[in-house]
Amino acid sequence: MVKLMQHIETLRWCGGLDGYLEIVDQTLLPTEFRYLACRDLQTLCEAIRQLRVRGAPAIGIAAAYGVVLGLQQPPARQEHKTHGWQEQQTPARKEMQAWTPQKARLTSPNPPGESATVVWQAFWARLEEVIQALASTRPTAVNLFWALERMRRRALAVQNQPTAAILQALLEEAKAIHEEDRQMCRAIGRHGQELLRDGQSVLTHCNAGGLATADYGTALAVIYAAVEAGKRIHVYVDETRPLWQGARLTAWELRQRGIPATVLCDNAAASLMQQGQVQAVITGADRIAANGDVANKIGTYGLAVLAAAHEIPFYVAAPSSSFDQAIADGSQIPIEHRPAGEVTHPFGRPIAPEGVQVYNPAFDVTPARLITAIICERGVIQPVCQEQITACLSKS
Amino acid sequence: MVKLMQHIETLRWCGGLDGYLEIVDQTLLPTEFRYLACRDLQTLCEAIRQLRVRGAPAIGIAAAYGVVLGLQQPPARQEHKTHGWQEQQTPARKEMQAWTPQKARLTSPNPPGESATVVWQAFWARLEEVIQALASTRPTAVNLFWALERMRRRALAVQNQPTAAILQALLEEAKAIHEEDRQMCRAIGRHGQELLRDGQSVLTHCNAGGLATADYGTALAVIYAAVEAGKRIHVYVDETRPLWQGARLTAWELRQRGIPATVLCDNAAASLMQQGQVQAVITGADRIAANGDVANKIGTYGLAVLAAAHEIPFYVAAPSSSFDQAIADGSQIPIEHRPAGEVTHPFGRPIAPEGVQVYNPAFDVTPARLITAIICERGVIQPVCQEQITACLSKS
Repeated sequence: MVKLMQHIETLRWCGGLDGYLEIVDQTLLPTEFRYLACRDLQTLCEAIRQLRVRGAPAIGIAAAYGVVLGLQQPPARQEHKTHGWQEQQTPARKEMQAWTPQKARLTSPNPPGESATVVWQAFWARLEEVIQALASTRPTAVNLFWALERMRRRALAVQNQPTAAILQALLEEAKAIHEEDRQMCRAIGRHGQELLRDGQSVLTHCNAGGLATADYGTALAVIYAAVEAGKRIHVYVDETRPLWQGARLTAWELRQRGIPATVLCDNAAASLMQQGQVQAVITGADRIAANGDVANKIGTYGLAVLAAAHEIPFYVAAPSSSFDQAIADGSQIPIEHRPAGEVTHPFGRPIAPEGVQVYNPAFDVTPARLITAIICERGVIQPVCQEQITACLSKS
Repeated sequence: MVKLMQHIETLRWCGGLDGYLEIVDQTLLPTEFRYLACRDLQTLCEAIRQLRVRGAPAIGIAAAYGVVLGLQQPPARQEHKTHGWQEQQTPARKEMQAWTPQKARLTSPNPPGESATVVWQAFWARLEEVIQALASTRPTAVNLFWALERMRRRALAVQNQPTAAILQALLEEAKAIHEEDRQMCRAIGRHGQELLRDGQSVLTHCNAGGLATADYGTALAVIYAAVEAGKRIHVYVDETRPLWQGARLTAWELRQRGIPATVLCDNAAASLMQQGQVQAVITGADRIAANGDVANKIGTYGLAVLAAAHEIPFYVAAPSSSFDQAIADGSQIPIEHRPAGEVTHPFGRPIAPEGVQVYNPAFDVTPARLITAIICERGVIQPVCQEQITACLSKS
């Protein structure tokens, strides 16, 4: 068994209840590997919006910790009423003391309503405010909403405890989401690596690796696990415009782990396939509808069409938290459109005439019929259809 | 009839026999519109290699003028033997006097051989040297070789005249190639515009416009002519990595001419098509094999596959000089691979880990079966097959 060279800790919680979240600032890679300390909700929201932390599973984990960060802070509407809360530099512990009158106990086990105490009502209002702030950072990856919903339910489940205990439960829930994500990566790797054979070349798009998750990725986990199982795999990496997550992050990760990689412009993938250089395409997913349609990084759909035309298997690797059973098909997945400048001004330098119109969706939707299999931590879903998805997700 | 706003003179010969070629330095666009004076062969060869002048027809024209530039200079091997030739700053006229002893007459009408005079032999050797230098700049666009061959034949046809007269004939031949290219653009526009309907959106890739030709392009000529005919056309412009000719040049041209344009990353084209936003794809060509296979900017093949999958017509617009009847099919077209740095270091900034492998072909090959029609100055070739191509090219 091959030992992969380096583990990347993409997110880490530092300290206890009054701690903070550190994330690898991925906008600096590949030239600089540096952690960014997110000590308040605003910094974390900005980090998610600016893609300092990105990748559906990592966004989910970040959001879970973000709920804790947000609850360390006072509710915005009380900012000018309560001593100390208006000071940005107030230590989180002090804020927590202000926020959590130790005497106040939450007595109602019910959702907020007439019977809830004033303290729980305020806590709940702030929780919703925090969740709203995190939920509005990015619209497409469902893991964000899934993680926030888990945090909301956890709070409700312990609402009759002191606020500090609720917060403790929420931090533990965030850590559980984090740890489950680690296990998920390994399980996806185990299931997925069986689909790859020794000597194959795999094309991937964007980054669905360690930098997108708590451990070593989803799409890349399949490759890492295949390599760990002794298979020689060459990875072709789409650069992934406009933000180059493939070239910047995936190629960097692969090199860190000693796996041979070749970077190409997105528009060269078809040429590679035409020449028989690609034996499989593997990508991640930001949201999977009930019928198996997959929203993922812009360009994924085109690759799926090309793979089908060249009879190359097209795999999606994603955790169960990326499935959105509430959405019937891909047409209902909200697609984020990002600023024109991402396309027209790489590194601030204009590559298009000033004021030109730009089409810059961050994601596209690949219909289930183009997907050979979805690799989930609970198994391989093949063929990709509602029935198989439901069966797989209902496994414990 | 709509009047298009601005004509761009992409190449212009300044002066007479001892003149020089000015080209728009396209590496500076869209931020700066500046002419580069090519006063010697070396500068022009560098300009072609660095894509300061690019686009198959424009490269052909540049190469034709380049033959004249090269013959203004002394043959390299005599540089240190003949008075004045070793001085880089010697005026071209002086070089011509040294190069062309007025008394020497070329008496043989035959190709160079035993019966040719020493002067013709030296001239011919230098001509071949110049042609070789120009031919080695870029391998794929056949217009380069086609133009050089025309120049070679012209020289042979007038070989029994004084050298100055031969050079004059060569300058006139270059100007004829230049003028024919102007006419070609208009003819392609006339034929092609009939394929577009009012209100349609057209996707194009790279730049096959005025900046790639002597007049207003090949692929873009079709759009310009449609607009001149009163049709409203919206153009989607693939940015065209790695050198962004779509965003930098095509979007710039379209704005200069007042035509609505939207720029997108290459990997977003499939998403546009999926949403029914594209009614036709039109690209240029760098070389067309006898069977109709087309080499064009990397990414073209992928677009053709996507267009077929979405039942969108895929058109190629190219002059007869882009057809290479000597090559049976696309597999024989030499594909230029360009430096890794074009991909990994946009504006000198690294977007990939140092030393990573890169796949950077400048072109790909689209099989004839994926091409709805080829629009040539002599008419529209449809269906695309050897028989139809031969029939069209044999029209006067």
